[in-house]
Amino acid sequence: MGELKVNLNNILDFVSKEEVNTFKTKIEESQRKLESKSGKGNDFLGWLTLPGSITPTHLADIEQTARDLRGKSDIVVVIGIGGSYLGAKAVIEALGNSFAQLQNNGNPHIIFAGQNICEDYHAELIQLLNGKNYSIVVISKSGTTTEPAIAFRLLKQHLEGKVGKAEAAKRIVAITDQSKGALRKLADSEGYRTFVIPDDVGGRYSVLTPVGLLPIAIAGFDIRKLVEGAVAGEKNTSANIPFEQNPACIYAAARNALYGKGKNVEIMVNYTPKLHYLTEWWKQLYGESEGKENKGIFPAGVDFTSDLHSMGQYIQEGERLIFETVISIEKPAHQLTIPNDPANLDQLNFISGKRYSEVNRMAELGTIVAHNDGGVPCISISIPELSDYWIGYTLYFFERACAISGYVLNVNPFDQPGVEAYKKNMFALLGKPGFEEQSKTLRTRLGI
Amino acid sequence: MGELKVNLNNILDFVSKEEVNTFKTKIEESQRKLESKSGKGNDFLGWLTLPGSITPTHLADIEQTARDLRGKSDIVVVIGIGGSYLGAKAVIEALGNSFAQLQNNGNPHIIFAGQNICEDYHAELIQLLNGKNYSIVVISKSGTTTEPAIAFRLLKQHLEGKVGKAEAAKRIVAITDQSKGALRKLADSEGYRTFVIPDDVGGRYSVLTPVGLLPIAIAGFDIRKLVEGAVAGEKNTSANIPFEQNPACIYAAARNALYGKGKNVEIMVNYTPKLHYLTEWWKQLYGESEGKENKGIFPAGVDFTSDLHSMGQYIQEGERLIFETVISIEKPAHQLTIPNDPANLDQLNFISGKRYSEVNRMAELGTIVAHNDGGVPCISISIPELSDYWIGYTLYFFERACAISGYVLNVNPFDQPGVEAYKKNMFALLGKPGFEEQSKTLRTRLGI
Repeated sequence: MGELKVNLNNILDFVSKEEVNTFKTKIEESQRKLESKSGKGNDFLGWLTLPGSITPTHLADIEQTARDLRGKSDIVVVIGIGGSYLGAKAVIEALGNSFAQLQNNGNPHIIFAGQNICEDYHAELIQLLNGKNYSIVVISKSGTTTEPAIAFRLLKQHLEGKVGKAEAAKRIVAITDQSKGALRKLADSEGYRTFVIPDDVGGRYSVLTPVGLLPIAIAGFDIRKLVEGAVAGEKNTSANIPFEQNPACIYAAARNALYGKGKNVEIMVNYTPKLHYLTEWWKQLYGESEGKENKGIFPAGVDFTSDLHSMGQYIQEGERLIFETVISIEKPAHQLTIPNDPANLDQLNFISGKRYSEVNRMAELGTIVAHNDGGVPCISISIPELSDYWIGYTLYFFERACAISGYVLNVNPFDQPGVEAYKKNMFALLGKPGFEEQSKTLRTRLGI
Repeated sequence: MGELKVNLNNILDFVSKEEVNTFKTKIEESQRKLESKSGKGNDFLGWLTLPGSITPTHLADIEQTARDLRGKSDIVVVIGIGGSYLGAKAVIEALGNSFAQLQNNGNPHIIFAGQNICEDYHAELIQLLNGKNYSIVVISKSGTTTEPAIAFRLLKQHLEGKVGKAEAAKRIVAITDQSKGALRKLADSEGYRTFVIPDDVGGRYSVLTPVGLLPIAIAGFDIRKLVEGAVAGEKNTSANIPFEQNPACIYAAARNALYGKGKNVEIMVNYTPKLHYLTEWWKQLYGESEGKENKGIFPAGVDFTSDLHSMGQYIQEGERLIFETVISIEKPAHQLTIPNDPANLDQLNFISGKRYSEVNRMAELGTIVAHNDGGVPCISISIPELSDYWIGYTLYFFERACAISGYVLNVNPFDQPGVEAYKKNMFALLGKPGFEEQSKTLRTRLGI
């Protein structure tokens, strides 16, 4: 059934195999630290054995709730930010129809809210929901994160106004802490159905908890296959699998070796827009895990061949601080060939009859060579197909490689201390009680 | 009626006013070179005086065609890549409803095609179009660029099969060269309506030609106001306006000064998802104009506050190679306040009654201070509102500042030699006649 493969052939002009292999000891040590829970951030390692620990009962429970919401909703609004948004979004976009929003295929449309504080976005959402039959999934560990909390205030009020308090309570599902926090308290008092975010799984590693699984199931995808793929990923990247055969170890070693050569920017490259949000998910995972102590590779993303006509010039000839990681999908879901045209004005009859995917694949290979020639190393990651199973596998693969990479970099890959800084300033500027001094200082500084 | 303002207060911990002003002479010289057409790439300066040269007759002509297509289409497929895609997409997303695809507001839905070679994307597009009433706008200077050319082969055949050759010819509009090239030849022989891409306007500067204006008009926006804004932008950034009062000069000086301090990555920051594609347009404009001769600032983008929970950690504490350029919109289009909640479990009643936009604005200011404290300089650009006029103004502002920046960097900001490299390899790998030798070499190199 194929395999996820990591190919380093196209980085070898920039870093030798031996240089990559110098990371072997450190990576094996990182793997041991992860599995013995003896490294930094070891109270957030729940994701490590999560796939294998998911029970059929748990999945059935999620599927039952998904079925129920699907039955009564044209739209399901998922309220969440960061990891409580990007995981589900990445999977839904990867597996869904490119034009899902323009069609009614029997699945409710999933809309995200509370992932920003844009007045126009949320006002237009309310306008839309006035005329729609909808439900809400609200995701927050604490229930006090500003963005989702204010979106939930708004939508709870709206839904209660529309269908009444009792019916609204049947249409709201909360995914939150097991026992503490504002959302848990509210859910218990209002009688919402709830799912638990485990204490030892951070937001960016939460896609295989109900945080990701419930929205994905509501959207109509097979979470059993997704988890099955993640279980295979867990098995094939574990410390039992030797460095040389372990794709997570190889990827972690290669990117750290390139970073050591001054390649400070990693661009995740895809050749299908369906993977756009997988890249966004990856950016959070890697940026938030590694970007600390003035270290870490800057994560960026492009959708090719589209962005070959945008970022392509820079990648080919700009500052040489880049390496690429290219994800390729071996087999498309559909079949489409280039039509023949007797007039052949565009002179493309030499590819008529070929599959679209073959042209895309040759664009990919041609680009890797071109970028190599321009001074850009390319790691290649290939997966057999865009399916529930292989997306699940890939998610776990990236999580594992990220944790290993963070340990190699000697940072805690499971905290995010820097995310607090803006929040404190925002609270002070908004006049939160207790922040009076800070507010004064900030207002003076900003001249407002 | 407000103004576009560039504020440098939050870069001054990293670069002094004097250091910014050292660019004055070079920038004034760049402005003169642009206006006297004596600098590099001077055969591609049509965009410089484009807004002021657009006639009411030209606009009426575009509007007439737009009205006609609007009248007969639920969907208009716009085929184009790079600048023939991103300009229209940026404006339509900035001005449109956040949930336009889920609604029928009387305007046709604009779908883009030929901006990638993804088999699944185009197969799903064909499935969608089977059941829809649609028209096509095909955009290509030469008519031979692979991505749009094969999409047009596909869709032309599909539309002709659906409505017949004669009716299809009435539903296809070509935007192409005045007299030469494959698409011009085809359009003339089939009797398509056409609009001209001027010879002296490159793709990434083409948004104010029919390339951008026709799709924007079809989507239902006011291209007269858009052009009016661009005319004001042209006036207010011209060489007549002294350096100190010229926003394009100030922005160009500031970013070059920061680049000189080792800030190799510029992150364009917005606080509304509506500007996501303006950032994508900006990335092409700047990346393709500056990224050459192993020079240029790497352009990246984030949508805040969403990405504060993704890239925020890295920006706050990762490698110190970043500066930010924050676009803020002074006035939202809608009105929405944070509801009060007597239970106040989330403890956010201190902001209840406030506008969403005020919270968003304080998040913006709080983030700028936090990032400054973390070692990230922030240029601020503010515009009064997200309207046709101000988007037109902003587009021109960025074009002008980009051209100036390119001259300061001493590159040709109007060519893109690096974009050819992947194409040649792709053609060779696809077996294009004449590429036999190159094909053999490449296949050996790739081991395929």
